[in-house]
Amino acid sequence: MEVKGLLKKLESLKYQGLYQKDFFLTWDKTQDEIKAVFEVADVLRYLRENNRSCRIFDSGLGISIFRDNSTRTRFSFVSACNMLGLAVQDLDEGKSQIAHGETVKETANMISFMADVLGIRDDMYIGKGHTYMADMASYLQEGYDDGVLEQRPTIVNLQCDIDHPTQSMSDALHIIHEFGGVENLKGKKIAMTWAYSPTYGKPLSVPQGIVGLLTRFGMDVVLAHPEGYEIMDDVIDVAKNNADQYGGKFTISNSMDDAFRDADIVYPKSWAPFKAMEVRTDLYAKGDRAGIDALEQKLLKQNAEHTDWACTEERMKLTRDGKALYMHCLPADITGLSCEMGEVDESVFDRYRVQLYKEASYKPYIIAAMMFLMKVKHPVEKLEELWNSNKPRWADN
Amino acid sequence: MEVKGLLKKLESLKYQGLYQKDFFLTWDKTQDEIKAVFEVADVLRYLRENNRSCRIFDSGLGISIFRDNSTRTRFSFVSACNMLGLAVQDLDEGKSQIAHGETVKETANMISFMADVLGIRDDMYIGKGHTYMADMASYLQEGYDDGVLEQRPTIVNLQCDIDHPTQSMSDALHIIHEFGGVENLKGKKIAMTWAYSPTYGKPLSVPQGIVGLLTRFGMDVVLAHPEGYEIMDDVIDVAKNNADQYGGKFTISNSMDDAFRDADIVYPKSWAPFKAMEVRTDLYAKGDRAGIDALEQKLLKQNAEHTDWACTEERMKLTRDGKALYMHCLPADITGLSCEMGEVDESVFDRYRVQLYKEASYKPYIIAAMMFLMKVKHPVEKLEELWNSNKPRWADN
Amino acid sequence: MEVKGLLKKLESLKYQGLYQKDFFLTWDKTQDEIKAVFEVADVLRYLRENNRSCRIFDSGLGISIFRDNSTRTRFSFVSACNMLGLAVQDLDEGKSQIAHGETVKETANMISFMADVLGIRDDMYIGKGHTYMADMASYLQEGYDDGVLEQRPTIVNLQCDIDHPTQSMSDALHIIHEFGGVENLKGKKIAMTWAYSPTYGKPLSVPQGIVGLLTRFGMDVVLAHPEGYEIMDDVIDVAKNNADQYGGKFTISNSMDDAFRDADIVYPKSWAPFKAMEVRTDLYAKGDRAGIDALEQKLLKQNAEHTDWACTEERMKLTRDGKALYMHCLPADITGLSCEMGEVDESVFDRYRVQLYKEASYKPYIIAAMMFLMKVKHPVEKLEELWNSNKPRWADN
Repeated sequence: MEVKGLLKKLESLKYQGLYQKDFFLTWDKTQDEIKAVFEVADVLRYLRENNRSCRIFDSGLGISIFRDNSTRTRFSFVSACNMLGLAVQDLDEGKSQIAHGETVKETANMISFMADVLGIRDDMYIGKGHTYMADMASYLQEGYDDGVLEQRPTIVNLQCDIDHPTQSMSDALHIIHEFGGVENLKGKKIAMTWAYSPTYGKPLSVPQGIVGLLTRFGMDVVLAHPEGYEIMDDVIDVAKNNADQYGGKFTISNSMDDAFRDADIVYPKSWAPFKAMEVRTDLYAKGDRAGIDALEQKLLKQNAEHTDWACTEERMKLTRDGKALYMHCLPADITGLSCEMGEVDESVFDRYRVQLYKEASYKPYIIAAMMFLMKVKHPVEKLEELWNSNKPRWADN
Repeated sequence: MEVKGLLKKLESLKYQGLYQKDFFLTWDKTQDEIKAVFEVADVLRYLRENNRSCRIFDSGLGISIFRDNSTRTRFSFVSACNMLGLAVQDLDEGKSQIAHGETVKETANMISFMADVLGIRDDMYIGKGHTYMADMASYLQEGYDDGVLEQRPTIVNLQCDIDHPTQSMSDALHIIHEFGGVENLKGKKIAMTWAYSPTYGKPLSVPQGIVGLLTRFGMDVVLAHPEGYEIMDDVIDVAKNNADQYGGKFTISNSMDDAFRDADIVYPKSWAPFKAMEVRTDLYAKGDRAGIDALEQKLLKQNAEHTDWACTEERMKLTRDGKALYMHCLPADITGLSCEMGEVDESVFDRYRVQLYKEASYKPYIIAAMMFLMKVKHPVEKLEELWNSNKPRWADN
Repeated sequence: MEVKGLLKKLESLKYQGLYQKDFFLTWDKTQDEIKAVFEVADVLRYLRENNRSCRIFDSGLGISIFRDNSTRTRFSFVSACNMLGLAVQDLDEGKSQIAHGETVKETANMISFMADVLGIRDDMYIGKGHTYMADMASYLQEGYDDGVLEQRPTIVNLQCDIDHPTQSMSDALHIIHEFGGVENLKGKKIAMTWAYSPTYGKPLSVPQGIVGLLTRFGMDVVLAHPEGYEIMDDVIDVAKNNADQYGGKFTISNSMDDAFRDADIVYPKSWAPFKAMEVRTDLYAKGDRAGIDALEQKLLKQNAEHTDWACTEERMKLTRDGKALYMHCLPADITGLSCEMGEVDESVFDRYRVQLYKEASYKPYIIAAMMFLMKVKHPVEKLEELWNSNKPRWADN
């Protein structure tokens, strides 16, 4: 019964604060709650790999709301829902439907009569995505309190303007496994650095999510970017406070070389300047098409001044023993493959391909673990029961 | 075993006429059949609220065909299917595919090899929607009789040009619960009235469905609208006959005030004149784009002459004790919120918001109850079995 | 226990080569493997008709990738997945995503973390569809070998540029049932003939699939078409070799009358010349819009020279006793109904309508049988267990 051993760590954690709540930002959660998500993700994976059914729902719906295109996150959410027994229904929302708060309230209730989970991606506009999810949650709570909804659907943030918790948690779980345990992260240096991309306006939620989460494990977190590519101030504060509280370091640098030097992990990735994204949000709000186009040209030009911000073989040599773990949320802009000049050399990317795919493979489990802890009152007992029931996921006999 | 008590009323009803049939129009069904749908909807809700699985299908498909946009009804259908154990597959039909009857016959068979239920919404064109569903049903029956289909898929009308039974039945169940039982509806006055909306061409199926159904419960049903906004003659006849047969009243008025006076329930809602919709259907058939645009302008102008047809605070005071139950199928055009002038004052809408959401919450259960009675030969025994089996919908332990 | 009898034939076959593999081309499979698919399809149908659950998955995903529009095949795939217990998630792929091999590799892994089956339709471009599927399979295998994927998802070819195995196998199973057993096909003449259609560019995979498969059963297979409508050389070789190996005949004719004469089965259907499709593929690759339009005009003109290639009542009289079994993959171009002049007379089509629909009804079972044999190690035992478990698909009590 190896599962007993796997559950020991979970048993020692206080995670009841997750029950019946939403998952918006990792820094809203306690250290134990974050660790519980990792533990449950690992146990669910173990159960599935040993062909145990992980269904906790006989029927029920997971609603997906993607206010931006998505393939990877969509498939991860669908996989997580399916594993737990939920069918997925997509809300293909017309922009007009969300013109005013009242309609969001109405939609929240109308789609949720039999919904157990809502997975929402809304990362396009600064100041909007997180607010939309928080509003949705308060309307759902109100609907539940008023007796309109029989159950309180919980929300999983599948990427907002501030954080991308299912990504950063998957990335963290990947690192934990690569380094042999969360306790081994102490003192390890990770370089979350900007990298050049010929495209424009990539979301800030990935770098923000990474520095907001990895500073909790005593790591030496360096955020590096050219001047003008600053991320959100609030998240900088989160990262600083985390470093103080958990005995790590958080520094900001304008040199990619400095960030790479002796790094154990590098995460080079393009993003758009926070302030420019604020401007863009206002332009969209005003419907100023010409302004949007002008901004895009300006930002592409600005990007083009920093084509030397790339994860090259040369630069990889600066890292610890030249062998830092290379990470990316995918898809990456690969120099000479997907574009002329991009975020990473093809040979670097290729060397880490299997690890990159494994990094991505944690996401369905992280989402499922969040849902599990938000929906199941006694997770340890339930996981043990799933193991002991011996119900196969796949009748391969 | 409270469920035993809940099933008593159902036991006394003759509802076997629903088994293996379709649900197109409420007035095709007997009084007992209508009541059985209400009863089963209540029991299914009770089962679900007590965390019992309501699955009667281990596998199987519900096919949705939406020939008009829909969010609410789509989610209600998906919820009902999921609760009973069916996966939903949407038929995203190109207009061209339905050019001639033969192709409808072919499509009916091709999509139905493993289909248990078809949910169809086709409310756009007068004389088309109901006909399409009836054709579909006869092709399915033929396919079943010929041995092409292993099971006879049953059709649920999710809104046609004549009736909107899942809406009117949900509305009725809401009223039944608000007034403490169907027996308490006798003599109660309901005002189904037209109301001004700045938009154009809202379907007639809601007012038609309401007067065609609520006249069966001994109520005093008033249909009110400005001259020129007449509904379908056949449905008027249905309502008159119902009133005669079931000891109620059915009157038509051209005064919103008269309709509201002493009403116990008001249902103010915009719709398009039936005759104009007939004209529009012909214009669409001819592809007369200019004619369609001209008609739209004419109708919007006509609407604008009746902006005083609104559910204002002032007018609500005319109702019984100023406290009539306000109803709407949603979304409503709310004055000062979703439009400058609309169907209802914001303060009236707000006061009834929770009740409006509850009204909507019956729809998944009404659809599920229709499907249940069309698919299960011994519903009482099955419902009891679902209760006694103790199989949880959601393993929240 | 009639199922015991049904399983006897399956027990005598060697089909283990299908386990954990993909299904791309029928001619990649052994005679026993092909027969096993027929047997399992029949048993699954028998189980379902006797209201037995056929679920072998408690949870899991079937991924559909349709790189061409589809209703029939989509519904067949969804039905097969649902019957076996898989939920279907569609990959709605942007064309740009597949610009280079690396991205196909990445997509293959990213969508497959919890995927058991991928159903792919990619029949538009010569030299592309099969290649895409084969690439996909090798990436999935690599992902599985590298430990990225927990299970090896298997691919079902839902139509490629070379073969359409789920169609040809369904057609074959229909013939087997019509003629009372595969052993009765020996010596029977089937005319797979081109027929005129006013449309352009219908895929070659149907005629290719038919001559590549039916030549395995000792039949007298005639492929007939006007000069210039040749199919792929490689498939001609397959058909010739099959005829040699299995004691049948394969001939090519340029006369529809000769093909129909004394035929037991006729399959008249339009397709595009292989060489023209090769040219078209190149034009698409170059983005030569004018060239594509010119080619279309040329081919439509060429088609129009052969309007006499039609399945008329007159021509049906040439067949054995004037009563050959008429077949089509549907939808057919029916003279006087769906077009002025087409593939078949309306009266011929009508006389065979029920049989045509039955022909189509085998497809969900053929797909399910392929998946079953690719996923279940001991199919005989599993089928017996499904029968004996008595678990109803539909709780109609």
